[in-house]
Amino acid sequence: MQPDLNLAAQLFDALSGATRQGRGIVRDSYGPGEQAAHDLMHRTAAGLDLETSVDAIGNLYMTLPGRDRAAPRLIVGSHLDSVPQGGNFDGAAGVVAGLAVLSAFRKAGYTPLCDVTVMAVRAEESAWFDVSYLGSGGAFGLLAPECLAVTRSDNGRSLEASLIEAGFDPTAIRERRRLLDPASIRAYLELHIEQGPTLVAAGLPAAVVSGIRGCKRFRNARCIGQYAHSGAVNRPQRHDAVAATVALLAALEGIWLRRLDAGEDLVVTSGELSTDPAMHGPSKIAGETRFVIDLRSVTAAVLAAVADEIRAGAAETAARYRVRFELGATSDSPPAVMDARLRARLLALLDEPFEMASGAGHDAATFASLGIPTAMIFVRNENGSHNPDEAMDLDDFAIGTQALLDLLHDFP
Amino acid sequence: MQPDLNLAAQLFDALSGATRQGRGIVRDSYGPGEQAAHDLMHRTAAGLDLETSVDAIGNLYMTLPGRDRAAPRLIVGSHLDSVPQGGNFDGAAGVVAGLAVLSAFRKAGYTPLCDVTVMAVRAEESAWFDVSYLGSGGAFGLLAPECLAVTRSDNGRSLEASLIEAGFDPTAIRERRRLLDPASIRAYLELHIEQGPTLVAAGLPAAVVSGIRGCKRFRNARCIGQYAHSGAVNRPQRHDAVAATVALLAALEGIWLRRLDAGEDLVVTSGELSTDPAMHGPSKIAGETRFVIDLRSVTAAVLAAVADEIRAGAAETAARYRVRFELGATSDSPPAVMDARLRARLLALLDEPFEMASGAGHDAATFASLGIPTAMIFVRNENGSHNPDEAMDLDDFAIGTQALLDLLHDFP
Repeated sequence: MQPDLNLAAQLFDALSGATRQGRGIVRDSYGPGEQAAHDLMHRTAAGLDLETSVDAIGNLYMTLPGRDRAAPRLIVGSHLDSVPQGGNFDGAAGVVAGLAVLSAFRKAGYTPLCDVTVMAVRAEESAWFDVSYLGSGGAFGLLAPECLAVTRSDNGRSLEASLIEAGFDPTAIRERRRLLDPASIRAYLELHIEQGPTLVAAGLPAAVVSGIRGCKRFRNARCIGQYAHSGAVNRPQRHDAVAATVALLAALEGIWLRRLDAGEDLVVTSGELSTDPAMHGPSKIAGETRFVIDLRSVTAAVLAAVADEIRAGAAETAARYRVRFELGATSDSPPAVMDARLRARLLALLDEPFEMASGAGHDAATFASLGIPTAMIFVRNENGSHNPDEAMDLDDFAIGTQALLDLLHDFP
Repeated sequence: MQPDLNLAAQLFDALSGATRQGRGIVRDSYGPGEQAAHDLMHRTAAGLDLETSVDAIGNLYMTLPGRDRAAPRLIVGSHLDSVPQGGNFDGAAGVVAGLAVLSAFRKAGYTPLCDVTVMAVRAEESAWFDVSYLGSGGAFGLLAPECLAVTRSDNGRSLEASLIEAGFDPTAIRERRRLLDPASIRAYLELHIEQGPTLVAAGLPAAVVSGIRGCKRFRNARCIGQYAHSGAVNRPQRHDAVAATVALLAALEGIWLRRLDAGEDLVVTSGELSTDPAMHGPSKIAGETRFVIDLRSVTAAVLAAVADEIRAGAAETAARYRVRFELGATSDSPPAVMDARLRARLLALLDEPFEMASGAGHDAATFASLGIPTAMIFVRNENGSHNPDEAMDLDDFAIGTQALLDLLHDFP
């Protein structure tokens, strides 16, 4: 049996048409972009005669009933939101793959042993709300209720207000309600585009994921100095926020290199860095910077140790440059290990077996953290993700989705 | 005889009232803010029965006729524009001082030997148009005609369009017309707030300026890398524009420290630095930065050598980080030396004689570059300039303006 690739192609086209703004894709968490994607999947599932339901925080479940409806079910999931000006495949490919499999099962008249549910997860991209795994964490009642006050990065509206506006129920989060019972889930499977260049470099269409890097992020770091004339204030009198920030980030690169030399897994990124456009000037010493520091590793202890080194480095740099750093709290998602048995099974289903760590976080990490057997398939993708140029070949998608179908069909 | 400090106080209040926007002052070059300041001075000069004229590019001349109208005149000048969210005194204090002196001369019935002109210079702050000494350079036909295409940093309108819109004549710049004859100027004098902390630290109200630091500025530098997922791309595959920019600026700080150790005069500032808000993200490697590098020194050779070191550093850094730097052309204003005889005379007029270099550029540099005897007086000012908190005490202003009056009254 083969996945329904015609349906997949139609869905990718429809997603692009409904959610492209300029060059890139905008499927904003709990906004009209994400909702358009959910509406499309919901209609498609209805057309396939799947059972559909939406939970209190907007996650969508599309279920092909199995022979034993009381048995723990298999969930195939991924998210439908995107970063601002993202690409068409990050997240959506996993939901489309699930529907392509269920459509094939329907067409073949195949009834699985247990229910198979495609889950379209809400709000995985923390670019909108700085909350890790908002949709999947919320489904299991794992979120701290304080996260309802987190504001959306573009419009400043709180998560609580955004949920209500989108027609959902923030009390589920406030009361840590469990919308999904881990005991009712036999396994969680997620297909996702690879977000780095590894498969392209290796010349391979797909990979099995061994584990997911955790993330520790200083999301709202600031350096506060003092604005002054660039020509009229000599070095000893300066409170230069840019110079201090550069010094801190340069020291952090040194920390990174030492950790890599020690054989540790770590990536360090400052992807947002800015002086204040309302206050800066070409002939001014900058009085403020805002920046992000994003740390990723498969080892939680490395993340904690580097964050400590950053805090110590900021204190030392602040004293040296006569400025103040406000690093703020970190947002954290722990590393996650994939299920050994499912990994082995998936590897056996690939013509060219290949395994790799995931640098990016995925909802699969939430399921794995609850002890649910979890596995992921990566599909080759050019130009990285989180940008308008991500490019997944449908032939590669077909290979990854075929492995998913085969795993679900003969679930071990 | 004493300067008219009542008039000065009134003018400072009226300037603040007319051009404050929120916390700071906005007197935009060739925009409504600068024009409001010119209108105020023009009306005041008419009230003092001074001869007034406006040249083709908007510089305002307010003249007290002398006994010999054919003799070369004395010009007291400064600019009336401000940086965005600047302070009330940077520039304006020099024009107000000139009018306070001429008002005193009028009231005393004193007629100087030659004409004394207060010149309100246009567009000295290159924060709006990236052209050094636009008003004073333009008055002498010194500007490259290509500068008419330079766009205003906030609204993107060309200098040419902005001049026409403000009622002036860009052909004066295109034809390099001389609106002011250097041979007709006996001396140029400029009073200005000190823009650094030197006089505050020294506990002195005013200083004589020995020379003006020149400036060499990379106004529109960029680093072009490649956007990618922060977790999914390891160090060797990255094209990280922030990491490369940090490395370049950190290396530049090393260059600066070596030059200071060698006893050279130099300040180095990157006061604008930003990733692209439309494209960046907390989980993205940045594909682009934009930044400014501003170099200042009293020694032209130091500026040239450091700019060369920056270009070489950018090439080396680009190769190491797999990115591209586009530093662009520099905008330049040469260092300027003040007239020795006038410096000595002004020093003798101060109760507490003190001399210092000017870190910032001033229109005085244009006059000095043409061989016109030029001198400057600095007035103590708290909190630096180019920000809403600049604070000049009127008592200090009175001391500086008294020296200006005495110099003009008994001009050597």
